[in-house]
Amino acid sequence: MVRCRSRTHGSKLRWVPQFYSLTFMSDYGLEDAFVAVCHAVASQIAPSLPVTDITHLIPLGDIQRGAVVLAQAVPYFPPAVHVAVVDPGVGTARRGVAVAAGDAVFVGPDNGLLSVAVAAAGGAAHAVSLSNTALWRKTTATTFHGRDIFMPVAARLAGGMPLGEAGDPVDPASLVTLPQPRYQVTGNRVEAEVVTADGFGNVQLSLPGSEAPGAGLVPGASVTLAWGGQSITIPFRAAFGEVPPGELLCYRDSGDWVAIAVSGGSAARLLDLPPGTSVTLTVP
Amino acid sequence: MVRCRSRTHGSKLRWVPQFYSLTFMSDYGLEDAFVAVCHAVASQIAPSLPVTDITHLIPLGDIQRGAVVLAQAVPYFPPAVHVAVVDPGVGTARRGVAVAAGDAVFVGPDNGLLSVAVAAAGGAAHAVSLSNTALWRKTTATTFHGRDIFMPVAARLAGGMPLGEAGDPVDPASLVTLPQPRYQVTGNRVEAEVVTADGFGNVQLSLPGSEAPGAGLVPGASVTLAWGGQSITIPFRAAFGEVPPGELLCYRDSGDWVAIAVSGGSAARLLDLPPGTSVTLTVP
Amino acid sequence: MVRCRSRTHGSKLRWVPQFYSLTFMSDYGLEDAFVAVCHAVASQIAPSLPVTDITHLIPLGDIQRGAVVLAQAVPYFPPAVHVAVVDPGVGTARRGVAVAAGDAVFVGPDNGLLSVAVAAAGGAAHAVSLSNTALWRKTTATTFHGRDIFMPVAARLAGGMPLGEAGDPVDPASLVTLPQPRYQVTGNRVEAEVVTADGFGNVQLSLPGSEAPGAGLVPGASVTLAWGGQSITIPFRAAFGEVPPGELLCYRDSGDWVAIAVSGGSAARLLDLPPGTSVTLTVP
Repeated sequence: MVRCRSRTHGSKLRWVPQFYSLTFMSDYGLEDAFVAVCHAVASQIAPSLPVTDITHLIPLGDIQRGAVVLAQAVPYFPPAVHVAVVDPGVGTARRGVAVAAGDAVFVGPDNGLLSVAVAAAGGAAHAVSLSNTALWRKTTATTFHGRDIFMPVAARLAGGMPLGEAGDPVDPASLVTLPQPRYQVTGNRVEAEVVTADGFGNVQLSLPGSEAPGAGLVPGASVTLAWGGQSITIPFRAAFGEVPPGELLCYRDSGDWVAIAVSGGSAARLLDLPPGTSVTLTVP
Repeated sequence: MVRCRSRTHGSKLRWVPQFYSLTFMSDYGLEDAFVAVCHAVASQIAPSLPVTDITHLIPLGDIQRGAVVLAQAVPYFPPAVHVAVVDPGVGTARRGVAVAAGDAVFVGPDNGLLSVAVAAAGGAAHAVSLSNTALWRKTTATTFHGRDIFMPVAARLAGGMPLGEAGDPVDPASLVTLPQPRYQVTGNRVEAEVVTADGFGNVQLSLPGSEAPGAGLVPGASVTLAWGGQSITIPFRAAFGEVPPGELLCYRDSGDWVAIAVSGGSAARLLDLPPGTSVTLTVP
Repeated sequence: MVRCRSRTHGSKLRWVPQFYSLTFMSDYGLEDAFVAVCHAVASQIAPSLPVTDITHLIPLGDIQRGAVVLAQAVPYFPPAVHVAVVDPGVGTARRGVAVAAGDAVFVGPDNGLLSVAVAAAGGAAHAVSLSNTALWRKTTATTFHGRDIFMPVAARLAGGMPLGEAGDPVDPASLVTLPQPRYQVTGNRVEAEVVTADGFGNVQLSLPGSEAPGAGLVPGASVTLAWGGQSITIPFRAAFGEVPPGELLCYRDSGDWVAIAVSGGSAARLLDLPPGTSVTLTVP
């Protein structure tokens, strides 16, 4: 694996990768040719560049969900350019950006979508607005910047184009960021938030798994989950199969966050725990 | 990018590509292994050939929808062989064809599915029926010509096989074509048809975006949309974000057709505008 | 195509492929980044290895359905390593295995998921439990062995690692296998079982197509289908298009099993024929 470096070269930001893969996430759905058209655009610019789809089933316009999914995926990839498009403001004044963080570059709308992954990668080292219109497709639709701006720019960055050529530098501190979900551990009592639910209905909380043992959240424990006037007591376990099918459990999920699931079912459907819900976890 | 050429060589049609990609669209769905099996068949014939999926969620047997999606996707691809299978008549007398148009070759059933894309690519230059059974899989199922006929032939065409080797020439004028959606502009009044709705419920009309300004359809205008005894007046805008979430707008879509959408929602669900519906657009 | 061989080399099982592709099937769904993360993990180990997705829409935890889909797909692939994950017992005592059968290797949980494909490939020649933890990701989540164990091991096997290095040999006879669906032909009367329904609702029975003619099941025949006190008489045909849209038919499907379908519709929705249902087919 060739490592990628970003560095300032005179007034230009430069990327000097030998090889750089490209990922693509969106809320475009799978029923139309939108995703394929973006792949086609990339292949015209960089014919041998592999493009890995992260998912295209982010709910339409759900920036918060998109931001979380992107951040969960990125750590497993080799150095890559990540194109993410959940962009209800497409065609309006919101700017498009490319952001270098860690050994990744993120390309998409500056609406917070990239912010969770950028923070997880160590924060934005450099950022540019995608103001170099020479890199865009010749005609750009106001409703499809994924095809006309983000993917053409990203394919060139993946091919080795210096970051600074994508547009004017912007202050990383000016990038839109989503509020960081909070948590607090006080003895065996945790205050946290619901971050997201995955496609199975597993409900991820804002408590890192590494904080769980300190709060008594260890396999074998019972935990009382309370929210909005309701409360239930459920087992803390290591694996779904350690409770009967259909039963709730609390566990450390595959991204190592504390989460609530139903074995073989959907906790999101069973409980009313939308993203942002404040919850407490107490181990008696 | 190596350009591809078709030419008549003696009595044979010949393709002389150096490199040719392959795309695949169908109504096979994503729940089964059908799509993967077609990829596998292609990989056996042309191991290093990239196959790009356009979509496999065309509604079962919906030739008209498939034809429109294929035509929307093709212009963004480099020279390619496009396999498209929406084929309610599979195993009956309808013939399979390969059609050269522009710098593309289309492979699929002769039921109109290919016709919109072929027309958009400049019309059929050459066509053959897929009568060369030596190219088919040894046993062919009457219900899976995608696997047994279309993909094996297409993979060979993508690998450089002359078109004429796929089967007997047919008169391009004999190919099944779908009726061309019509429109008429009279001053600030447009008569048009609903062509399709995408996965978001954005409703595309038969009016090219380039005709819109001549009919008064410019950002900032109000437009009265009338169909089937109903009528609504909605804003014409450049971008979804220029109306509040949940509000209707008229706009030029990413393929540059005039379309009706709900910002962050589904116009197809809100209004009753199936494909083929006659509509009028009037700018007062 | 380079053929792959497994052979015993001293006490080690060895694979000596020159090139080996990789497939991936799961019940992970398409709404999250789970599938992409597994692709990413494979690409870190074997950057130029193509990974073909079979499907990721196996119903959650439905081992029987996953086993059938895998077995239907495998015969069309070149020699490959097949990763399959439908694993309700992930993180519990069930073991992970790699099984060599025919010119394929199967990697996944030992819960029966691999058994139908292994049997169809000629039975297990060699098997190992995935006990070599040096091949796993450094931290393994109890809920995501696809990412942390199966894919890392499979990518190395696809790259040429001898099978025996994945872990300790296990007796192929000790592998969990699903019960083989049965059928019996007595003159023009067939007793069989429902095996599965595909995404279209086509209902596959346990009767091989090759047995159909001997039971009078030939195009043009009428067949009486009886199950659970109900019975209907439907035509046996070669192609969907030979009955009007919406009508039932019996036919030999694309995997050459006798099946029940509705032309342009869903037999699974119309009839009550879940997997395991005993049925009789009689040709008067």
